[in-house]
Amino acid sequence: METTLRNVKGTKDFLPQEQGLRNYIRRTLEEVFETYGCKPLETPMLQYYDLLASKYGGGAEIVKEVYRLSDQGERELALRYDLTVPLAKVVGMNPEMRLPFKRYEIGKVFRDGPVKPGRFREFVQCDVDIVGTSSMLAEAELISMAFAAFERLGLDVYVEVNNRKLLSGLLQALGVAEEQAEGVMLSLDKLKKIGVDGVVDDLRLRGIDEETIAAVAAFLQSGEWTMDSLAGRFAEPLVQEGVAELRELFACLKGAGVSGDVRFAPFLARGLSIYTGTVYEIFLRDGRITSSIGSGGRYDRIIGQFLGGGREYPAVGISFGLDVILTALTMGGAEGADNRADVFVVPLGTEADALGLANRLRAAGIRVELELSGRRLKKALDYANRERIPLVLIYGENERDAGAVTLRDMRSGEERTVALAGDRLVDAIAQLLS
Amino acid sequence: METTLRNVKGTKDFLPQEQGLRNYIRRTLEEVFETYGCKPLETPMLQYYDLLASKYGGGAEIVKEVYRLSDQGERELALRYDLTVPLAKVVGMNPEMRLPFKRYEIGKVFRDGPVKPGRFREFVQCDVDIVGTSSMLAEAELISMAFAAFERLGLDVYVEVNNRKLLSGLLQALGVAEEQAEGVMLSLDKLKKIGVDGVVDDLRLRGIDEETIAAVAAFLQSGEWTMDSLAGRFAEPLVQEGVAELRELFACLKGAGVSGDVRFAPFLARGLSIYTGTVYEIFLRDGRITSSIGSGGRYDRIIGQFLGGGREYPAVGISFGLDVILTALTMGGAEGADNRADVFVVPLGTEADALGLANRLRAAGIRVELELSGRRLKKALDYANRERIPLVLIYGENERDAGAVTLRDMRSGEERTVALAGDRLVDAIAQLLS
Repeated sequence: METTLRNVKGTKDFLPQEQGLRNYIRRTLEEVFETYGCKPLETPMLQYYDLLASKYGGGAEIVKEVYRLSDQGERELALRYDLTVPLAKVVGMNPEMRLPFKRYEIGKVFRDGPVKPGRFREFVQCDVDIVGTSSMLAEAELISMAFAAFERLGLDVYVEVNNRKLLSGLLQALGVAEEQAEGVMLSLDKLKKIGVDGVVDDLRLRGIDEETIAAVAAFLQSGEWTMDSLAGRFAEPLVQEGVAELRELFACLKGAGVSGDVRFAPFLARGLSIYTGTVYEIFLRDGRITSSIGSGGRYDRIIGQFLGGGREYPAVGISFGLDVILTALTMGGAEGADNRADVFVVPLGTEADALGLANRLRAAGIRVELELSGRRLKKALDYANRERIPLVLIYGENERDAGAVTLRDMRSGEERTVALAGDRLVDAIAQLLS
Repeated sequence: METTLRNVKGTKDFLPQEQGLRNYIRRTLEEVFETYGCKPLETPMLQYYDLLASKYGGGAEIVKEVYRLSDQGERELALRYDLTVPLAKVVGMNPEMRLPFKRYEIGKVFRDGPVKPGRFREFVQCDVDIVGTSSMLAEAELISMAFAAFERLGLDVYVEVNNRKLLSGLLQALGVAEEQAEGVMLSLDKLKKIGVDGVVDDLRLRGIDEETIAAVAAFLQSGEWTMDSLAGRFAEPLVQEGVAELRELFACLKGAGVSGDVRFAPFLARGLSIYTGTVYEIFLRDGRITSSIGSGGRYDRIIGQFLGGGREYPAVGISFGLDVILTALTMGGAEGADNRADVFVVPLGTEADALGLANRLRAAGIRVELELSGRRLKKALDYANRERIPLVLIYGENERDAGAVTLRDMRSGEERTVALAGDRLVDAIAQLLS
């Protein structure tokens, strides 16, 4: 068996300390999502392959990374690679659904792609989407929600926003041919990381013609790109429309009382071609992780195209990466969620009654671990010390005969006898834990 | 696209009302598990095929139902079919782990098997296992925990317990050959459903010889099977040992203060051959679902055999089915978790500021939905009615100019104006919701 005792490439076990922190992140996100009026949805991980591979799905790049399988009925199946295609399917299968539909889903997705530190083949996405509204309030609400979520998690973030209409209009203005626009966008998206020279090299690698590269480089070197200067300089309708939408977004965020750091980032594209308007990415202000820890945007066409039938489903989404948040919290010194027990009960010849004692405390909401391996007192106290369980209850035959228990505070080493009758024990424990 | 807008056989979408209830079940179980000192673990869904198919895994029956797939590196992979094999793998890969290791895992498992109402190919298991203790306290603790969990969920249950040593000993005493014992156990396991005649037919179908069938039938017809009568009638060491263990379990449950309904069920086997001692299944007392809604037992050998190396890992587990609990709650009239918003905010020409108003309430923990589709007042009130959102805030330009908002209680139809300054609005809402 030795050879198989390993994890599949791109997967890992989350042992209790990490998993406790992940559960805390998940519950915090769920609570914040629910105060924002989002409703839970769970879609299957198994999907039909042709659904995931359809041309309005995630695009050719992502289809290469789809895990395929079949069942005993020889159906061609696949593991979902995101939560958006399954959402579109739910919207299409439930035509009676009231729109706007505002749902969250937290679940595993699978991509058979490159593995890097922090990048897995099986990972948890936390998505919120609002389907069926064109209002800019939707974007503003999701960005407000992101600030609220990260504040609850103790992470100081900023948001970069852009608009795909503005970016498309800029490329038109610079003379970039339509069929080259997506490649140029992807190069520009790297500006922060690789600088102007890097972008120029990247454009060459993509086979963009030299004239276009020169125009883009001149523009990048021209310096400041504020909304005002762009709107003043380029008359293209898409530029004007994009800037107007961004101004509306900033006005909504101001009305929303968002005091957080929101920055206009004219070259932010987000890789996926589905976006049609606002796009945004969320970063840590202290830069301890340079990649984004959440992102989203407006995608007004994809669900309607995907479902056919001519109906439109304007939509806005946001996605949080559970494990990048885990990494951020861990790097920030989070110790793992406090999933240790409050009390360790050590029976000495009183096993069955000690379980009764433990259960009484549990019924009062106290987290109790019971000594199950018959350790002697000294070893049991060592164990409580190592596990940093703050309180130990020693319950020997003498204690039982006296209707009492010895309560030891591991932090101070103090011990006292507490009677078992009434609520005195629960009160004493609550006081020591508070 | 029409043809692909369907779910894969054996899978389904959980829409918000059901999913809200599932989240409530999951959180309740997690909370109870944690008060019992259990720690969270998450293992990958993708595993190596040879690990899942190894002879100490779930047995030949289950291996037939394994979904197989491969990755771009041509690794032979599979989707996990339970949470126990991945647990054994974690124990084997982390030799420094302190035992007993008491973990819970709630996660999807996959079985390409028969589909029935309530039986899916992709489903959530909620497992708690304690690895590394032979103490009967462990069984008693898990059974206590099951009663605590179902009490929290409002489900009235009873537990049937048996001991595999007792059952094996009985079969020896009845002259059942060792190679026939597993088949006979599986037939006996159905006694409650199919009666003595049904068991006889089932034994014939399994090709058990007539002499053995006659002995088993005579025993079944002999009437009452109490622990005392069995221990008095059969001197076989396994019968004596099994009864002694059961008596110890009942003594532990008494000490544990378990007042719930625990019944000795001498023919309960639980299908899986891995069990070595105590086995138990949990049923609803009102019989609204006849299959078990949780089950478990002691499996002292399987992890050690699986890992090799001669070390023993005595273990006890319990497993809850999330969706059978969902069905039980739904049949019992549960309406789905209350995931509707507390307040619906309707802006009338005040969109951005209304988002700010919504966010202020959300920061106070109130669940707020904001009108995002520009509905007029009457339509917005209709929506709140249909969604059973109890309170509506109407925020028009007049209200904004006056620094106030109109608060409508949808249940009584009463409206009043509340000033926005200070905490008056939050207080008024909290009062109406309480």
